Amino acid sequence: MSREPFTRLSREVLVDNAWHRYCLDRYVHADGSEGAYYYVDMAGSCTVIPWFPDGTTMLVRVQRYLLDCDLFEFPTGGLQPGDEVKAMAQTELREEGGLVASRWDALGRFAPYKGVSNEICHVFLARGLTAVPQEPEPSEKITLHRMPLAEARRRLVEQEPADAMSLAALALLDRWCAGPGAGQGVG
Amino acid sequence: MSREPFTRLSREVLVDNAWHRYCLDRYVHADGSEGAYYYVDMAGSCTVIPWFPDGTTMLVRVQRYLLDCDLFEFPTGGLQPGDEVKAMAQTELREEGGLVASRWDALGRFAPYKGVSNEICHVFLARGLTAVPQEPEPSEKITLHRMPLAEARRRLVEQEPADAMSLAALALLDRWCAGPGAGQGVG
Repeated sequence: MSREPFTRLSREVLVDNAWHRYCLDRYVHADGSEGAYYYVDMAGSCTVIPWFPDGTTMLVRVQRYLLDCDLFEFPTGGLQPGDEVKAMAQTELREEGGLVASRWDALGRFAPYKGVSNEICHVFLARGLTAVPQEPEPSEKITLHRMPLAEARRRLVEQEPADAMSLAALALLDRWCAGPGAGQGVG
Repeated sequence: MSREPFTRLSREVLVDNAWHRYCLDRYVHADGSEGAYYYVDMAGSCTVIPWFPDGTTMLVRVQRYLLDCDLFEFPTGGLQPGDEVKAMAQTELREEGGLVASRWDALGRFAPYKGVSNEICHVFLARGLTAVPQEPEPSEKITLHRMPLAEARRRLVEQEPADAMSLAALALLDRWCAGPGAGQGVG
């Protein structure tokens, strides 16, 4: 399959806010027809799976305004242009999860919303954890829930609706655990 | 946790296009402070996991303009306001996957992009499959890839980036297979 069925003619930022840019690209297809693509432009994001020596993890429970419900999630944060991914993951884990970690492993990357956003989410496993005061943003109402990983897995997939980003992070954790990178650190 | 830390003051549709609406809500927090929420308003979507009697499934490979790559995915489509979810899943499976199915099971729902979109994706298992001509939209460049489910799982999680929506669909399939609804139909 060709990588270039689209040739971009123009790019316009329609709305620029503190979180993302909403853009319109005009393009021409390989067959000569023209089209328009509306999308969210994001510098990326990071999701952190905390892992304690006793086999527990930490979920956060977040009020999701757009879904009109609370969701169990792994700590997640959006990047701003220029942010360094791992540093942002450390900030998110500290501010949202109330944890600092001495060991960080990159588990991989996923696209959460392939059709409408160019966001790539980077997933990390955080070990060597120490509790610190949580520092959520004023707009965030977040509670912490420490539990065995199997219980976290059950809560993440059984909630309605499920949180696809946390489920994708678990799939990348499972991939990493099955590979050579995991060593003997995670049971 | 209260369900109402936000009280909406206004809602404005900033951009209305053929695929979604881009909106701005203004709201007041429980503490009296005001804020703005920019988001994508979507009527929802559906993802279909085809399942053949020989234990294979069908992935599609789609050019993803925003990610500048091709992704392996389960057939997926967006809903328009008023669309019936299962009918849309049937349409997507036929047009994108080149398949019609006689048995449909609802596997559950997930939120793909909780922070920026109100989209809920409905996941279906489709069985009793018959091949029909594929009818992709002119803007879609899609190829079909039939393979054992284990191979599909591997491709979905090993591609860079992974497709979070397909991984979430697999997690809902696994949940369903472990539950009472699965019966003996899926190995």
